[in-house]
Amino acid sequence: MTTAPPGAPDVVRSAYAQLAVTDLARSRWFWVDMLGLHVQYEDENTLYLRGTDELTHHSLVLRRGETAALDHIAYRVRTPGDLDRAWAFFSSLGCPVRRVPAGAGARGIGDAVRVIDPLGFPVEFFHHTERAERLIQRYDLRRGAEVARLDHFNLCTPDIPAAYRHYRSLGFGCSETIEGDGEHEMYAAWMYRKQTVHDVAFTGGAGPRLHHLGVATHESHQVLRTADLFGALREEHHIERGPGRHGVSNAFYLYLRDPDGHRVEIYTSDYYTGDPDHETYRWSVRDDRRRDFWGSAVIESWYKEASPVLDLEGRPRPVSDSLLDESAVRIGADGLG
Amino acid sequence: MTTAPPGAPDVVRSAYAQLAVTDLARSRWFWVDMLGLHVQYEDENTLYLRGTDELTHHSLVLRRGETAALDHIAYRVRTPGDLDRAWAFFSSLGCPVRRVPAGAGARGIGDAVRVIDPLGFPVEFFHHTERAERLIQRYDLRRGAEVARLDHFNLCTPDIPAAYRHYRSLGFGCSETIEGDGEHEMYAAWMYRKQTVHDVAFTGGAGPRLHHLGVATHESHQVLRTADLFGALREEHHIERGPGRHGVSNAFYLYLRDPDGHRVEIYTSDYYTGDPDHETYRWSVRDDRRRDFWGSAVIESWYKEASPVLDLEGRPRPVSDSLLDESAVRIGADGLG
Amino acid sequence: MTTAPPGAPDVVRSAYAQLAVTDLARSRWFWVDMLGLHVQYEDENTLYLRGTDELTHHSLVLRRGETAALDHIAYRVRTPGDLDRAWAFFSSLGCPVRRVPAGAGARGIGDAVRVIDPLGFPVEFFHHTERAERLIQRYDLRRGAEVARLDHFNLCTPDIPAAYRHYRSLGFGCSETIEGDGEHEMYAAWMYRKQTVHDVAFTGGAGPRLHHLGVATHESHQVLRTADLFGALREEHHIERGPGRHGVSNAFYLYLRDPDGHRVEIYTSDYYTGDPDHETYRWSVRDDRRRDFWGSAVIESWYKEASPVLDLEGRPRPVSDSLLDESAVRIGADGLG
Amino acid sequence: MTTAPPGAPDVVRSAYAQLAVTDLARSRWFWVDMLGLHVQYEDENTLYLRGTDELTHHSLVLRRGETAALDHIAYRVRTPGDLDRAWAFFSSLGCPVRRVPAGAGARGIGDAVRVIDPLGFPVEFFHHTERAERLIQRYDLRRGAEVARLDHFNLCTPDIPAAYRHYRSLGFGCSETIEGDGEHEMYAAWMYRKQTVHDVAFTGGAGPRLHHLGVATHESHQVLRTADLFGALREEHHIERGPGRHGVSNAFYLYLRDPDGHRVEIYTSDYYTGDPDHETYRWSVRDDRRRDFWGSAVIESWYKEASPVLDLEGRPRPVSDSLLDESAVRIGADGLG
Repeated sequence: MTTAPPGAPDVVRSAYAQLAVTDLARSRWFWVDMLGLHVQYEDENTLYLRGTDELTHHSLVLRRGETAALDHIAYRVRTPGDLDRAWAFFSSLGCPVRRVPAGAGARGIGDAVRVIDPLGFPVEFFHHTERAERLIQRYDLRRGAEVARLDHFNLCTPDIPAAYRHYRSLGFGCSETIEGDGEHEMYAAWMYRKQTVHDVAFTGGAGPRLHHLGVATHESHQVLRTADLFGALREEHHIERGPGRHGVSNAFYLYLRDPDGHRVEIYTSDYYTGDPDHETYRWSVRDDRRRDFWGSAVIESWYKEASPVLDLEGRPRPVSDSLLDESAVRIGADGLG
Repeated sequence: MTTAPPGAPDVVRSAYAQLAVTDLARSRWFWVDMLGLHVQYEDENTLYLRGTDELTHHSLVLRRGETAALDHIAYRVRTPGDLDRAWAFFSSLGCPVRRVPAGAGARGIGDAVRVIDPLGFPVEFFHHTERAERLIQRYDLRRGAEVARLDHFNLCTPDIPAAYRHYRSLGFGCSETIEGDGEHEMYAAWMYRKQTVHDVAFTGGAGPRLHHLGVATHESHQVLRTADLFGALREEHHIERGPGRHGVSNAFYLYLRDPDGHRVEIYTSDYYTGDPDHETYRWSVRDDRRRDFWGSAVIESWYKEASPVLDLEGRPRPVSDSLLDESAVRIGADGLG
Repeated sequence: MTTAPPGAPDVVRSAYAQLAVTDLARSRWFWVDMLGLHVQYEDENTLYLRGTDELTHHSLVLRRGETAALDHIAYRVRTPGDLDRAWAFFSSLGCPVRRVPAGAGARGIGDAVRVIDPLGFPVEFFHHTERAERLIQRYDLRRGAEVARLDHFNLCTPDIPAAYRHYRSLGFGCSETIEGDGEHEMYAAWMYRKQTVHDVAFTGGAGPRLHHLGVATHESHQVLRTADLFGALREEHHIERGPGRHGVSNAFYLYLRDPDGHRVEIYTSDYYTGDPDHETYRWSVRDDRRRDFWGSAVIESWYKEASPVLDLEGRPRPVSDSLLDESAVRIGADGLG
Repeated sequence: MTTAPPGAPDVVRSAYAQLAVTDLARSRWFWVDMLGLHVQYEDENTLYLRGTDELTHHSLVLRRGETAALDHIAYRVRTPGDLDRAWAFFSSLGCPVRRVPAGAGARGIGDAVRVIDPLGFPVEFFHHTERAERLIQRYDLRRGAEVARLDHFNLCTPDIPAAYRHYRSLGFGCSETIEGDGEHEMYAAWMYRKQTVHDVAFTGGAGPRLHHLGVATHESHQVLRTADLFGALREEHHIERGPGRHGVSNAFYLYLRDPDGHRVEIYTSDYYTGDPDHETYRWSVRDDRRRDFWGSAVIESWYKEASPVLDLEGRPRPVSDSLLDESAVRIGADGLG
């Protein structure tokens, strides 16, 4: 773990995401019955979900909405004082900032600060969260993909170097990148606070949009089971890409689209990044193993489609086009060029 | 596969077992909820179960009874004419033989012949059985151990060479044995008609008694999941032995005891035995890998305990003591000597 | 297992294939170092290989040749007398037939009969084969894909119903098919003698050509390891399709191309087909799960490319175009239409 | 991660152990050929090894010695300044402390401080270490157990509460404990700095002695493969306990003894402990799932045997008897009482 810079909030980890979905019952089937997330709380308008290894209130909130979108991503910070630092940090950047007192925001979450960050994403910071019953060894409650925990957010943003600089200023380390030959040709970056490959990653593309949520399982056979379950129910159209092995991160993956088209990655295997001098591993955009270690082509929709994000008033954020298009680089079987 | 000798019924495979159990609800929890067998039919007194890969009506019948016991094991034969051959074969041996017309015996089974074989076991032979809906790809119906099919019967009998000779006379091949230094010192034998390591095996011990039923899963992680499920529910006392790798058969195994003490082996990985000249592989009783390839000790109850068997009138069969006691041979960590 | 018709040779199983390869050292890297086949014998012109569960001399022969091709596929028959039946059976069909005495053909194989079958494929029948050292539990010798055994041959042939009728006349059962709406619209068929889904399958296309050899591993993680190994060595271009789950057979698969372009399928999980009344399971060509249970598109080269086959004099056999083209049927993500 | 207390060195993680072994060639077979550790450096007297996911010079040093023992365990600290803090911290406790300049100690390690800690263990602290070539995706170099990284040290010490207090004073968090009914009846504790269940754990028993080193693999099938490899080579006597599932940590485990009797745990699956308010999970010594979630008995040697440790002059440290004996508590199948 790198240390938080003076003045920046000390982020512990990616903590939860809140998605607007148009059919809560259908979303419950996807996220609870098929992916195996545990229902911590539900009412007619919301579902609070967590993985079976998670000890805090939730890692995903599904809110009934008119249109499918990302309400916000949320990071947990180390101390209550980090909320004031978050306020000051983003205010000084001229970003919209709002305090959300406990009870006014998501259930189970204490006082929070919400901002529209310099990349245009709605981001919440909080410290306090309710503890939840330990389910780590409740094998009897496991279902479907047997999701253990939220792993990361993946964001579509037009200017990867700008996203990289912003998160560096928040004290995030960088585990891996995809780069071109030019000096500033960065196509993608994976950045972390917890001791894994990432808490957040950036995919070059029109943004701000949410590319996907990454959730972790313990072993690869659980990923295969997930795909088998969708096939068994003739719901295989929810499978967008994979299973495969990522070059970046070395994780075994499967990409699914939920009933609203929100993308989720079932992700397993990772490596430790906690040493103070952990080095960034740089992939060339010309290595066809970067996106799939086995050289399989990436699906066009995976490059092009993503979820819109909302501002602090719940209005869709405008989207800017990408500066660099990785999919235009044709390498091996991959690329749309 | 070896060919059936003239006059002997042409056995296709081990097909099903019928067990008497004292608490049908509790047995349903064990076999259906925990092991994942599919309920093909049930009423207040019986449960008809099968594995998810099985295409015939059932591979296990649980009957409500006063005392826990084996009613009979059943083999499927190739043609209706093999029922007459079975009748003649066992009659000529002076064994009790009874015809059970369709409808008078187990549901879903056509005309059958039941015998008390020369080893003292109640054995049914049948040809016709109802087909059942194909569940092979219904991953959504898989539960617990995800049992795919019945694999074999394991019988406690005092005289292993006699058991071996009897099943050879029925055209069974012998895949593996455990033998001592003496010429006729056979401690155990594994015999087959279908092209796997076995349909039936013999464990030296007081008999006739049923040592266990073997059921197959596809991969080893399903065996580990089964043990985890029992632990999660604080029902770990149902786990008797394993998981481990057998030396004999090379299968990965876990032994459980059902609520009445009937033993079941969750068994995965096996090898092909279908060539006409398939040779018997002989283990020395002095090789501590024969029972567990990793050298783990066998549990005393596994050597000593087994289920009683009933005669054709449903009375408990008397038991004779073993001639040879493998557990008395102390090898490495194994043995009670 | 179905019974062999009177007059037809009693085929036990698919036994081995002999391939001509242009660079034996490079082929040795692929089949031995990467797939993990065991070298039973080698000299400067040939390699005799087998899987670690196989107890006979070889299941694959690689012969140094000018051009890459299939020399022949070989079936083991139950008795020496079945060689005469094979001679008579194919002679009566007007097929080229040749006797190959022990020593004149492949090492470790006794007297054989070779024919060009009515589908135009070079096929050998033999009974006697040398036994080989048992390696089933030699985990220390396992490498790469850890291939356990040959599973099946997959043949490209223009007229699937004709291929189906021919193999039915040889006593093969049919486990699964892909069919269209028309009465005789059969796109593919899977046929067996041993108690698995298949010994041979037919893929509609220009033929006679060898589509692939199928080799079996015990568990899916071995298939993933294989793909990882090719990626690790930057040899990912050998990976053509998958990993994925087949709808047909329910097997987990990975298709690779060897240095000459010969295709091999790493295949794991299967089901028992040995009952006398085993029914054919029929897939509609309109079900996008038939080729990949998860709905992934089939790769164009997989539909179009295959290995040429040689006649009994070693000359390339002429190829006829397909009558039906499954790849022209566009279903879901699959098809080239 | 908890924060280091003022004055205490900021420990990043358990980094490496140095063992004295009596036959370096035989130890190389065990740790390199069988466990799959990568040789970073070797000469006639030493072996420097690391797991395939580790990016620093080594996680295990094997030194040729007259008698088998632990030379020291080593923790990496966050900054060079933490070495001075370590010096001051242990000096103030009256512990033997020694500075080991770069080049005078282990290869690839910068300036270090070595102490005999209050528990009597030889412990090194260092900050600088050489980076090593990234092997994370070199699947072609994986062997045997495919060990990815060192996970933890397990120490035998007579007074568990004292060990707990000492490591708390070093800023370690406590993930799990085994406790009796009495207020200070702590039988075992698992403590961490990195975001896993532990960097160090304490087993009640005569001490100071090294109970085992824990090394991590990615998936459970790699643990099973390890046991299979020892069985295949008739070296199964190296397998002491397992495979099994721990109650504590929920890890899947296998315990092996190296040629000198040093114990190593192959450990897989774990959970995240990085949140600032991560709670300790307390097991009752009366729960027979604490040591094995499946209720299997612990082996007597596992409770009783451990490796001696050396002082800063390389002399064996005296051993004190345990205050509490967990093995005397008989629960289910477990315990020697």
